[in-house]
Parts: sequence; C-alpha cells; structure tokens
Amino acid sequence: VILCVAPSPAWDVTYHVDRLREHATNRARTVSGRAGGKAVNVGRVLHALGEPVTVLAPVGGPTGELFAEDLAAHGVATELVDDALETRRTVTIVSDETGDATVVNEPGRLGDWAVFLDRAEQLMSSASVVVGSGSLPSGAPVDAYARLARAAASHGLPMVVDTSGPALVSALAASPALVKPNLSELREIGHDDDPVEAARRLAGTSGTAVVVSLGAAGMVLATADHAWRASLPAGLRGNPTGAGDAAVAAFARGLRMGADWPAVLVDAVAVSGAAVLAPYAGEFAPADHERLAASVVVERIDHP
Amino acid sequence: VILCVAPSPAWDVTYHVDRLREHATNRARTVSGRAGGKAVNVGRVLHALGEPVTVLAPVGGPTGELFAEDLAAHGVATELVDDALETRRTVTIVSDETGDATVVNEPGRLGDWAVFLDRAEQLMSSASVVVGSGSLPSGAPVDAYARLARAAASHGLPMVVDTSGPALVSALAASPALVKPNLSELREIGHDDDPVEAARRLAGTSGTAVVVSLGAAGMVLATADHAWRASLPAGLRGNPTGAGDAAVAAFARGLRMGADWPAVLVDAVAVSGAAVLAPYAGEFAPADHERLAASVVVERIDHP
Repeated sequence: VILCVAPSPAWDVTYHVDRLREHATNRARTVSGRAGGKAVNVGRVLHALGEPVTVLAPVGGPTGELFAEDLAAHGVATELVDDALETRRTVTIVSDETGDATVVNEPGRLGDWAVFLDRAEQLMSSASVVVGSGSLPSGAPVDAYARLARAAASHGLPMVVDTSGPALVSALAASPALVKPNLSELREIGHDDDPVEAARRLAGTSGTAVVVSLGAAGMVLATADHAWRASLPAGLRGNPTGAGDAAVAAFARGLRMGADWPAVLVDAVAVSGAAVLAPYAGEFAPADHERLAASVVVERIDHP
Repeated sequence: VILCVAPSPAWDVTYHVDRLREHATNRARTVSGRAGGKAVNVGRVLHALGEPVTVLAPVGGPTGELFAEDLAAHGVATELVDDALETRRTVTIVSDETGDATVVNEPGRLGDWAVFLDRAEQLMSSASVVVGSGSLPSGAPVDAYARLARAAASHGLPMVVDTSGPALVSALAASPALVKPNLSELREIGHDDDPVEAARRLAGTSGTAVVVSLGAAGMVLATADHAWRASLPAGLRGNPTGAGDAAVAAFARGLRMGADWPAVLVDAVAVSGAAVLAPYAGEFAPADHERLAASVVVERIDHP
C-alpha cells in the first residue's frame, strides 16, 4: 500500500459567482465542498490508478467529519488521527464569466504532531512507498518531512516529498527518493537559474531525484547521474490545479513498481496532462491518461 | 420583548490577508467567525441597548451549532428552529494593507418555512415589537414578511421590515409600521428619483413609515403626513457594515417605547453612527452613542 501522509488536509469549498467584484458583496450561485490538500489529491489519483493507498491525515471538529465522509464516499482508504484543532478550509471563488479562480487558504494547524508521527511510523510497516506532500501546519516541526523520510528509510521504503521552503531544504538532508519543487519553489531555496541546471545541481548534491515541472514545456527529471526531459507534443487547455499532485502519484506508483526513471517520467507527464483536462484536483479520465501516454516524447539530457 | 425574526441567519467568517490577489492563491493570516445575518445584528444592538430581545432563527448542521454557541456566549436570547438544511456561511476577505473587504455570501436556504412561521406567531403573543430583516431564503414564499406583518398586526404589534425587491413590495401591502430601504433598494422597486420624494411617495401610498439612509448625509424619515431629515455635523470614518441594522434596532426600541418619530430618528442616526465607529456589525460603544446623540441635527421637511 502507498502511504500518503497529509499533515495539512483541508475541506475545499468552491463558490461560483457570475464575476467576482473586489471590495463588494458577491452572491454565491452554488456552493460545493470536497476533501482536499495536496497529499489527499495524490491519494485520490493513486486510488483512481488502481493502487492500494492509505491517506493519513489529522482531522478535527465538524469540518473534519465532512472531510472523512467525503473520502469514505469516494472509496479512498484513510487513517484519521483525531486532533483537537478543527480541520482547515480553503475557499475558491470561481468567476463563471471568465473562469478565473481566486483562492484563500486557511492556515493549517496540528495540535499533536508526536501522535501523528507515531501513527505514520506504525503504518510504514505495511507500506511499499511513502508520500509526504503539502505545506506543514503550525504545530509541526520544520524538519517534519525529514523525520518521516528517515523513518521511511529505516523501514526500507522510498519516499516522495512535495513541499517548499525550509521544509524542503530540511527534507533534502534526509535523502528521500524524490522531491518535486516547482520553479518558484526552486527560486525560493536559492536556485534561480535554468531549471534543468538547478534540478541537476540539487540531485547531485543531495542524492535525491529531482523532478521539476516546466508547465506546458513538460517536466525535467534529474538524478545524481542522469537527466531526462519529457513533454507532450501540444499544450493542454484546462485546470492546472492538481496536475503536480497527479505527477507525484505517478512517481509513487513508479517507485512501487520499481520502474525505470524515464518510463516513470513519461507516465507522470501523461497523468499530469490528464489531470489538467479534468475539472477537479485529484481526478482524471483514464482514456485521457492512456491517449496522452502514447504521445509523450522523452529525451535524455546528457550531463555536460 | 422585541422579537427579531431572522429567516437568513449566517455564520460570518472573516479572513485577513495582506492584500487580496485576484486569480491567485492567498494565505489567510487569521480566521474568525461570528453569528451574523441582518436580524441577528439588530438583536445584538438591541441587547447592547439593554432591551429584552429574542432572536428567532432556523439553524441546521454543525454550522448552526457554531451560530447557536456564539449568540449564547454573548448573552443574546434565541429561539432556534431546527432545520434540515445547514446554516449558511458568509466569507469576508479583508486586505490589511488597504482595509478593503470583499464579501461572498452563500445563498440562504430554509427547509421548512411553515414550522418557522408557526414559531414566529407563537412568540408574538409575548412580544412588544417584531423586526423582520434580511433577504429571504429559498424555501420561504416571497410574501414571507407580509405574512409576518399580518400576524404581528393581528397581535396588535408594530413591525419593522428591512428587506428588498419583491419581498419589500409584498411587505408594504401588509402595512408594517416601518420599512428601511436603502437607495439602491428604492431604485430596485422603481423609485429612482430624489430619496426624500421617494420616501414621501412610498409612505403616502402604503401608510407605512419609510426611513432611508443618505449615508454621510444622514437619514430621512417619511410618514403619510410628515417628513424629517436628521444628520451628524460631520461624516464618520469607519465600517458602515451593520450601520443600517443599528438604525433598525433604534427604530424598534422607539416603537416599543412609543416615542415621537423625530426623537426616534435622532436616536437611529446616533446608534448608526456609533456602529460605524465599531469594528463589527452589531456592536457599538455606548459612549459613542451618547456623544453622537447630543450632536444630531433634525429638521422637519414640510410637504410641498
């Protein structure tokens, strides 16, 4: 089973308005909610790919109940740790006239990190791969992902980490199998040059594989020894929210299968593209996945 | 006791961000919630004025529990009707750099209007004044306020109605004691000329007293026979949200005391001004109320 550790889960609320007017009162036409957060979206994609998955998340209060009920209704297996603090919400306001979305995220808060970490370590004894994704809640130490990566390593498990800033820097010191910073996250930790060079450098110094999304130009994957770039022949129009989570899911599945890096990169570009074509984060149409996988072009980029 | 009928109560959530960026992801610095809705704010002001008050509201789901707990914590007496539909939320996003607020209101929904109306009529037997305020939830008939006004009349009670559009037009046919449309609500029902003339005409045809806020220029009150204008000597800087609800509270109190219209108008301008100076709807400092009341200028506007 692939263990998706979600320290900052959320109840994602979406409002549709005709057109958001700033500094004014807007009436929501529709209101909908779903369980979210990056690691939760990874878990949804893995479940849709047919992978046995467990989403580990802290939940609190009535919003935590909504979160639990939604994942249960979608058949995604969860291990929920009761926490004293209420599960956070995110609010997305979609202007129907333009399709633009404005998002406000409540900060994540975790009451008892030690209990959460203990549960994560327990679950590793029956896991094949560990995924840690999302910003860290207040209440978790900055080296939270590093501790999880070391625990995973002690269980002989590869771990994928998708986070940013100091949490990412800290995680790299624990040498997880793969990290997935985006361009702004690379800049944030001091790599503001060409993304291919940045990925190579980071992989070379950390020993961790580094995958970076180039948006419509595809993805680059660097290990200590090699690098590859993969892309679709044409750009896709759609909703990029959750595309990165879909890529993380593909890499977690690839690590579970022990697949070659270039093959996993091709699959990540295809699942990620299929996610762009789907309306909600964590969803995609299998037919899109299959069709796009056949058209991905991958090239080896030799080290200079 | 003054009965405040709140068919569209809400749980008002406020997020503070540095500066709201549209079409982007924003991080909330702080999250707070309070029981809201126009009639609820009227009830809060009446409670702060020392008036015995009962807020009648439908509540549903966990959000309804938050609503009930908050009013109980503030000592505002409530009669809550359990409803199958969850209490709605409103979201206000305040940009701390500019002070601007962007609001998104979930639509109000009421599962069982008949049960709610029955409870309102029961409570009228021990009430002195009835206030009905706010938009009507889906599930309530368009003549909801008219029915309440007729029920109030059959109990010999004056009623204040603060609503808009068809619900306002319908309520006027039932001749409540007072309505409080704002300028855009007057325009919406076909009165797009001078607000003093519009208030006089509406009062003359309906037999209902009409009070209209002129913003910084004060308020005008028209009855079938007379009209008055009252204002503060200087404009106030602050938060106008809830100022209209404070004025409605002052009128309800005046009707309970049987005070003269000009005296009530002066008090409404003073409480409303004190509400502008307070940070939250439904709150004001008694010292501001007292100070402003001494400075309000009221003039009789003779009919032409």
